[in-house]
Amino acid sequence: MNNNNAPIGIFDSGFGGLTVMSAVTKLMPKENIIYFGDTAHVPYGSKSKDVVTNFALNISKFLVRNKVKLIVVACNTASAFSLTALKKNIDIPIIGVIKAGSKTAALNTKNNKIAVIGTEGTIKSNAYAKEIKKINKNIKVFSQACPLFVPLVEEGWFKTKITDDIIKFYLKNIVNKKIDTIILGCTHYPLIKQSIQKNIGNNIKIVDSANAVACEVKELLNKNNLSNNSKTVGKYSFYVSDSPDKFKKIGSKFFCKKIKTVKKMEII
Amino acid sequence: MNNNNAPIGIFDSGFGGLTVMSAVTKLMPKENIIYFGDTAHVPYGSKSKDVVTNFALNISKFLVRNKVKLIVVACNTASAFSLTALKKNIDIPIIGVIKAGSKTAALNTKNNKIAVIGTEGTIKSNAYAKEIKKINKNIKVFSQACPLFVPLVEEGWFKTKITDDIIKFYLKNIVNKKIDTIILGCTHYPLIKQSIQKNIGNNIKIVDSANAVACEVKELLNKNNLSNNSKTVGKYSFYVSDSPDKFKKIGSKFFCKKIKTVKKMEII
Repeated sequence: MNNNNAPIGIFDSGFGGLTVMSAVTKLMPKENIIYFGDTAHVPYGSKSKDVVTNFALNISKFLVRNKVKLIVVACNTASAFSLTALKKNIDIPIIGVIKAGSKTAALNTKNNKIAVIGTEGTIKSNAYAKEIKKINKNIKVFSQACPLFVPLVEEGWFKTKITDDIIKFYLKNIVNKKIDTIILGCTHYPLIKQSIQKNIGNNIKIVDSANAVACEVKELLNKNNLSNNSKTVGKYSFYVSDSPDKFKKIGSKFFCKKIKTVKKMEII
Repeated sequence: MNNNNAPIGIFDSGFGGLTVMSAVTKLMPKENIIYFGDTAHVPYGSKSKDVVTNFALNISKFLVRNKVKLIVVACNTASAFSLTALKKNIDIPIIGVIKAGSKTAALNTKNNKIAVIGTEGTIKSNAYAKEIKKINKNIKVFSQACPLFVPLVEEGWFKTKITDDIIKFYLKNIVNKKIDTIILGCTHYPLIKQSIQKNIGNNIKIVDSANAVACEVKELLNKNNLSNNSKTVGKYSFYVSDSPDKFKKIGSKFFCKKIKTVKKMEII
């Protein structure tokens, strides 16, 4: 297999990264993809930098052993905590989700007021604010951790009254700051995007990183002559560190397509 | 150190087991205790039997290396999934939380209708129903997984309107079954016990395993002449696999006492 036909590796702590994979498959249908969901260690959002970086390194090594040509860290917490360590230790191109989301939001804002919502880890890392300030230091960034959003999404409560109440509770302070753009800094959140929009009003633009990351992947493959030029559509392999059957069932909602085969792979 | 002075080992996926430890310290203030919270792998409730058993075995080996005289599996999911494997592989007495809670509930019920609430893993394992049926096969057991209770407790939302609404949503079906007893089959749930009682009414008795487990520990130590006869109060050591500072902060709420020192210990 030459490098062009080699798969793209995408990983996340669980299901969330499938929203990124879905965007990548739509933009680059010929690319082969290996997805890894670290379901034995999910969630990453409440854990420390050291622990998350250790998980991320081990998964990246697994993907490299499987000859991927590029790795997408499709998890905001791992991108915030571990991208530097991964780039130092892994010898292929690596793309996180923070830069792409920040760029899209910075291009969108007209009043230079952006909100970022995410897990405890992502918000504490301040990674989005740092990235946005690199693009335009005049932009004000307001952050809010929303620890209950991930379990809400995993419970499938996308449009319930309880979901509305929790969204209102977490977002009331940042909406009061008159932001015009909000970044969904967690790959689970696109599944409650409609409920978020309903509760914050239509004047605020919601940016989710999935499409922006897919564009960055395409650019990088083109630049390095790594795009897959095959005439057939790509093949997808799914690996998890726990509960493949559950991944098949819930993962299909995130991927918006049926996932047929999932293999279990222990990552230490 | 002779065996009587040896510490008791208590472990859980995170903070929850501190409610059990608190009950043990009240009943047996002279006992030394080593607590392990597996905060790098929390939560266990949504994970598989194999993965949880692997975590539980590695923690138990760590406790044995630290010369504990007895292990309390202060986590319902690990008790449901892993007690048999632990008893097979570890050569000291091991106590789970399921048996004690089942016994207390079976003794309490007058109309032979008991409800059990817990994590997805505990409920799917059917461990409480099996244990209760061993005591009295005429008792009907109604089960309900409540996946959002753990994140609610970890967020500190013990008495909010949202907590009330989520409790009502999960418990409405089992309350309709005219149960007179409900087991809190997760060591996080005692922290929202008052809210649960308020929403199910005062006619239903809530059983949490913590006190029942403490009594079982005391009996077992007495029976094996292993009680600590020292004249001073016990010493406590706390270990976690991630984020010791967070454990100190949140753990103090569960333990109802300030936790001063927490050491980080990687468990693979």
